[in-house]
Amino acid sequence: MTNIVNEVLTANSAYAEGFDKADLPMPPGRHFAILTCMDARLDPAKYAGLSEGDAHVIRNAGGRASDDAIRSLVISYKLLGTREWFVIHHSDCGMETFTDDIMRDLLASSLKAASIDADGWHDCGQGPGSTEGSYIEWLTIKDQAQSVLEDVRRIKAHPLVPADIPVYGYIYDVKSGRLMEVPEATAAGK
Amino acid sequence: MTNIVNEVLTANSAYAEGFDKADLPMPPGRHFAILTCMDARLDPAKYAGLSEGDAHVIRNAGGRASDDAIRSLVISYKLLGTREWFVIHHSDCGMETFTDDIMRDLLASSLKAASIDADGWHDCGQGPGSTEGSYIEWLTIKDQAQSVLEDVRRIKAHPLVPADIPVYGYIYDVKSGRLMEVPEATAAGK
Repeated sequence: MTNIVNEVLTANSAYAEGFDKADLPMPPGRHFAILTCMDARLDPAKYAGLSEGDAHVIRNAGGRASDDAIRSLVISYKLLGTREWFVIHHSDCGMETFTDDIMRDLLASSLKAASIDADGWHDCGQGPGSTEGSYIEWLTIKDQAQSVLEDVRRIKAHPLVPADIPVYGYIYDVKSGRLMEVPEATAAGK
Repeated sequence: MTNIVNEVLTANSAYAEGFDKADLPMPPGRHFAILTCMDARLDPAKYAGLSEGDAHVIRNAGGRASDDAIRSLVISYKLLGTREWFVIHHSDCGMETFTDDIMRDLLASSLKAASIDADGWHDCGQGPGSTEGSYIEWLTIKDQAQSVLEDVRRIKAHPLVPADIPVYGYIYDVKSGRLMEVPEATAAGK
């Protein structure tokens, strides 16, 4: 067992010792969902004031409105009754630090290296594996306000999203802990 | 402004007032990532003992190893240095309560209704919109231990995932707050 596994299980035991949430129902009690970034500095329960049972939280690299995020939001609405959604990106996001081309080059060179010096990557050699990164849209971000706006628009335009659900656009500032509205996104999300 | 927006912003102001995390670096300090479900009853920071800055948290409906989750994990490893991953599904998951066919029927009937009584859905009529749900793989779950195993296997088999990264499989019990290992998943994740 690694140190990390040990630490996680020790922390979990402490949480379970004082656990008093056994009777929470499956549907979110406050009927809303948040789509936000996986970034380690973000704790949506803390920054948005959530207790266990309150709201769905969907997270991926960038907090982007990927097909998978939309799958989750549609389930959240249709089966579990959320009626308002937040899209929350953040300042100093890793997704601003690279482009699809940079990521593809980085992965291609790592994979080529793997066939030579076995640095831990799958040994995909010079074949299809070395260009696997080209088949993934990495959903990088140039401008946070713009990406929030685009994601709110994409969600609202999806044929499985109910027309009247409000979608709010925000940026979380990692320096202050504050949520800052992107007014044009919230307007587009009406 | 709705009550929910007001409550979220009020909670956020209180969080920001006492904010002392301005200097956290972008890469996760504890070098690991968790993939888990969006379920409102789960608070990964609490159940795994995370502080802001510690670990990436990726969440979707079911905590499934979707293409988008793998996109996020590859970025987490390659650009931001995580070196261990957890896949954590949970008991009493909404994804066990339906099948692709049920979801598709539900969406198709809602969309048809929308063209008649304008119940808030996009007015897609009987056309392409009414079968839009058929184009989405909903990633439902029949058995949690099996879904954890399948997801760990899918992650390990992905050509962009480094061969030597350990992936651990767990189920979170919503009745007790406890993480329970799925040993065959963790074994497959070695």
